[in-house]
Amino acid sequence: MKNKIILYDLSGKNNIRFSPPCWNVKLCLIHNNIDFDTIPIRFTEKEKINFSNQTLVPIIKYNEEIISDSWNIFVWLNDKIKEIKLIPNEQTRVFSHFLYFWTSKSLLPIIFKLIANDIPKILNAEDKEYFIKSREDRIKKPLKSLLSDKKKSKIQLFQSLITFEKILENNKFFNGNNLGLPDFIFFGNFMWAEKCSSENLFKNLPNIHKWFLNIKKLNRL
Amino acid sequence: MKNKIILYDLSGKNNIRFSPPCWNVKLCLIHNNIDFDTIPIRFTEKEKINFSNQTLVPIIKYNEEIISDSWNIFVWLNDKIKEIKLIPNEQTRVFSHFLYFWTSKSLLPIIFKLIANDIPKILNAEDKEYFIKSREDRIKKPLKSLLSDKKKSKIQLFQSLITFEKILENNKFFNGNNLGLPDFIFFGNFMWAEKCSSENLFKNLPNIHKWFLNIKKLNRL
Repeated sequence: MKNKIILYDLSGKNNIRFSPPCWNVKLCLIHNNIDFDTIPIRFTEKEKINFSNQTLVPIIKYNEEIISDSWNIFVWLNDKIKEIKLIPNEQTRVFSHFLYFWTSKSLLPIIFKLIANDIPKILNAEDKEYFIKSREDRIKKPLKSLLSDKKKSKIQLFQSLITFEKILENNKFFNGNNLGLPDFIFFGNFMWAEKCSSENLFKNLPNIHKWFLNIKKLNRL
Repeated sequence: MKNKIILYDLSGKNNIRFSPPCWNVKLCLIHNNIDFDTIPIRFTEKEKINFSNQTLVPIIKYNEEIISDSWNIFVWLNDKIKEIKLIPNEQTRVFSHFLYFWTSKSLLPIIFKLIANDIPKILNAEDKEYFIKSREDRIKKPLKSLLSDKKKSKIQLFQSLITFEKILENNKFFNGNNLGLPDFIFFGNFMWAEKCSSENLFKNLPNIHKWFLNIKKLNRL
């Protein structure tokens, strides 16, 4: 690409980057050797992304183009940079779109229950207050109440991932033999947990653990 | 193919065919115009399939070849009949294998809870006894106890299918624009319910309902 892609990326204190969909997009860019810069956005700096007419990161800015939402970004990258063949066939599109929905609606809420109480530790005072209030409004109970449910949440996590664990018995990646879009979309959720928490999400899931470490190693993350 | 494929297919009374993985395989064969005959196997006729060295249908017999398990059958069909391009790329293989595990481990047990008490009605006396005993041993409680949980099971079903419902907003089939392996693997579960029960599984799932009716119409089922 002629110019650099600018990625608006969620940031905590000490410049820590932890957003799952931002990591999904970054892994895709890094793995495909696409040059980009990030602009850190803290939870309480939403005014910095007013230009996008919505309130969430990731956002990509490229010349005059503005694309928000990780799925839209992947579709845009696929159209814009033909040579990376991000969505090489219809089945990749459907499977990846499935994973986009499934990870955000099913996987992420379970991981959230396990790491929610660790997230404030990586935020500065102002963001911490925003995070706790907005998340407690969302789940309609104190974040602390999640601590006593950890055992249950770990069982839920294992059950929700077991089918994916089985797939990796016969496949190196969720995309098959090579890293691809289904992997990018899965990855950020685990990177999020690793950046925010010391919670071990991979208990009894050795294949997913190996897959995660392998992706990090391949991309020097 | 030079000779006809023989499919060993689960049968109830009055020759009713209701097994989910058998339907998955039959839809694949029908949709691809592959000629086959079925041999009906009732629950209490397992001795008829002793030759396969295992106890479950579907089984395919083709000349001297014997293939059991629906996934193995799909892989065999893909290798044997190149022109149908059943698994055209790695992503179809991974997505379909995911659906194979997910439908049998996650979807099927929920549908079972909703229709289990209807299944004996389509079985003859001997099979009925076998079915009730074997299933009650498996779930460790009386089948009748599932009746009081129907409301809960319907919510579970909706939650487990909502991501698939969303995919069909933008795609005609789980395979993309054309019917393919991911659809075949999904289909049998709903056909099973329809053959055994008058339970409506499609409440608040209009896209999946339309998809199901569309497949039946396309294949005159």
